[in-house]
Amino acid sequence: MQTPWEHRFAQRTQRMKSSAIRELLKLTEQSDVISFAGGLPATDVFPVDEIREACSRVLKDGGAYSLQYGSTEGYGPLREMIARHTARYGIQISPQNIVITSGSQQALDLIGKIFINRGDRIVVEAPTYLGALQAWNAYGAEYVPVPSDENGMITDELEKALRTGPKFIYALPNFQNPTGSTLIMERRLRLVELADRYGVPIIEDDPYGQLRFDGDHLPSLVVIDNHIHTNNGSYTGNVIYLSTFSKILAPGLRLAWVIAPEEVIHKIVLAKQGTDLNSATFNQVLAHEVGQHGFFDRHVKHICEVYKERRDVMLDSLTELMPPEVHWTHPQGGLFLWATLPEGMDSTVLFREAVAEKVAYVPGVSFYPREDVTNTMRLNFSYSCPELITEGIHRLAKVIRKHIQDD
Amino acid sequence: MQTPWEHRFAQRTQRMKSSAIRELLKLTEQSDVISFAGGLPATDVFPVDEIREACSRVLKDGGAYSLQYGSTEGYGPLREMIARHTARYGIQISPQNIVITSGSQQALDLIGKIFINRGDRIVVEAPTYLGALQAWNAYGAEYVPVPSDENGMITDELEKALRTGPKFIYALPNFQNPTGSTLIMERRLRLVELADRYGVPIIEDDPYGQLRFDGDHLPSLVVIDNHIHTNNGSYTGNVIYLSTFSKILAPGLRLAWVIAPEEVIHKIVLAKQGTDLNSATFNQVLAHEVGQHGFFDRHVKHICEVYKERRDVMLDSLTELMPPEVHWTHPQGGLFLWATLPEGMDSTVLFREAVAEKVAYVPGVSFYPREDVTNTMRLNFSYSCPELITEGIHRLAKVIRKHIQDD
Repeated sequence: MQTPWEHRFAQRTQRMKSSAIRELLKLTEQSDVISFAGGLPATDVFPVDEIREACSRVLKDGGAYSLQYGSTEGYGPLREMIARHTARYGIQISPQNIVITSGSQQALDLIGKIFINRGDRIVVEAPTYLGALQAWNAYGAEYVPVPSDENGMITDELEKALRTGPKFIYALPNFQNPTGSTLIMERRLRLVELADRYGVPIIEDDPYGQLRFDGDHLPSLVVIDNHIHTNNGSYTGNVIYLSTFSKILAPGLRLAWVIAPEEVIHKIVLAKQGTDLNSATFNQVLAHEVGQHGFFDRHVKHICEVYKERRDVMLDSLTELMPPEVHWTHPQGGLFLWATLPEGMDSTVLFREAVAEKVAYVPGVSFYPREDVTNTMRLNFSYSCPELITEGIHRLAKVIRKHIQDD
Repeated sequence: MQTPWEHRFAQRTQRMKSSAIRELLKLTEQSDVISFAGGLPATDVFPVDEIREACSRVLKDGGAYSLQYGSTEGYGPLREMIARHTARYGIQISPQNIVITSGSQQALDLIGKIFINRGDRIVVEAPTYLGALQAWNAYGAEYVPVPSDENGMITDELEKALRTGPKFIYALPNFQNPTGSTLIMERRLRLVELADRYGVPIIEDDPYGQLRFDGDHLPSLVVIDNHIHTNNGSYTGNVIYLSTFSKILAPGLRLAWVIAPEEVIHKIVLAKQGTDLNSATFNQVLAHEVGQHGFFDRHVKHICEVYKERRDVMLDSLTELMPPEVHWTHPQGGLFLWATLPEGMDSTVLFREAVAEKVAYVPGVSFYPREDVTNTMRLNFSYSCPELITEGIHRLAKVIRKHIQDD
């Protein structure tokens, strides 16, 4: 039966599906389920006291401006702070290369809006971040998946994808969502070089880059590219770089940023004007205030300590409890790891049983643009405390063992 | 010369133009210009102390949840508060009929996203809110303008517009932006009746409805429509209603809401997931906390007192200082009034002279979808204090008088 509204909706809504993550979260959040499903930072690392004190300072005297409309580009001092902060990671840009967005999800939406014509091809890692697919489905994107392994996107397979004439390449080089794997240096150089040669821009999504627990920081794609393209301190290269305050401060403030050539920033700002005028002024002033006196350095260090322990507990529990047929990645940072079940097993089928056993994850199929791989799952290790991680992996192993014995 | 990025941008970006308001604001904000150009609420009415105290309460004990990701629909208690609050204006709905958005601008964008196919016609008042045109241009909307007068949209002209088969009607019944005029009761009934008869939904944009200084509150279109369509307390009618915290609390929090049938809410939520996941959790919890114990009633009363005085000062100054050839509206509320210069005068040409005399407004042409009326201007009376309003109108009258004498 057609509902009264159905015939009125735009064609593009047919490709808007509810995120599996979001629907699954609903299933699991009401009960005593141990959830490895969400992409949530640990609530207990939020710097609640520092934010409360910063609110108070911002709103003390003459702080009413922080409650007014602001410029679409974002709060000037915050953009300057980001430019200074990222300089230490080798990203040499000016504040004019930065726009503040309402979370990185908005950056993905705006990038879709300014770049994607219906039918445009986007090169993505397979698997890749679900939220990007969601954002770009609305603009009619088609995807050209490039397989990845524990060392990130397999760049030997990239050239074939680039010959299809894609609009851009979407890459998550650090502790990728969903796999947790990191693109090795050799592949970073190759990716930037190939993108330059084919004249295809790279969207570098880096929400977790600072959350490295082991090993050395690897240069961002925008930094590698920056060696080729700068012009009087303003970045003129081929990479659009995204990062966020969601993982180093708090996602409930919805603040992120885009670094790009000024021409691209200008278009994003135009699109953002029509989309939400500006990101919350108050939140921007607040983030700038919290960020004084080296706060982020200290806080990132603290987050890394907490998450490293949780990752280790999850890896140890997996080693101890999982049957030998199950494999998983060993992320050097971030929020997730990625488990692979024996060929032929379906993690979506398993999911309801897992929830019955009071444990949850995200079935990996959602992260593949073609939904053609069914035996994987994403496990979040940042949200739950160590005791619950061990218990959750115990429950999950029980469900998986049962299926392996059944076969 | 083609820039390196130009050929990469999507077709839709050709219709994205920078808002004239925003560009003009840049011209005027650095200097000692008295600006009637912005759509800004008065910074001095922001309840800074109440917000500071609410921040502190929210972040005291167990407040970390307010910094976490939240549901796309919005914070439950805030949606319940809105449902209770709007019930007093006769809008009988349940929280399931509400979604929280990042300002009403996001609501306009999401409505564009779920409804507009390229080439779809939208019925708009002429003149109408510029931000709606900006949002919908990106989706390829075409506009069917219906003229308006001091009593709002001239509904006798509406039926002709409805025969073109539009996707929806966009209406601002209360203290319209830009004209300040209010749709009279007789025309409200006619508008809802015609929309129902032709099966065309109405988008009712009501950011200022509570800011009434004179006269009696008139029922919203959604209320008039509600008499026809309700089903077990859930709204199932033909109107999508938008309102915002920007004018009754603070725009720098970027919080607004949409009221619609659940089927439409569901689609908006899907679109919003891909757009920004959720509006800032912290800001939603904060707005709910500020709103306890009847705060909004008291605060709206205070805002109305301040704005009424400013409107009166502007009206008195206009009467005293303007040449008789200039006419203007007499709004009963809101933030704006609308002045009409003698036929043949061009308010855009006048603008640079006005800025040279240190006064600014928005040339009316930007608010007409066909940009075919050039002798009007929007004057904001909420932002400047009474003394500056008088001085600004004095300067503006001087510029206009000079042109009238020249003719």
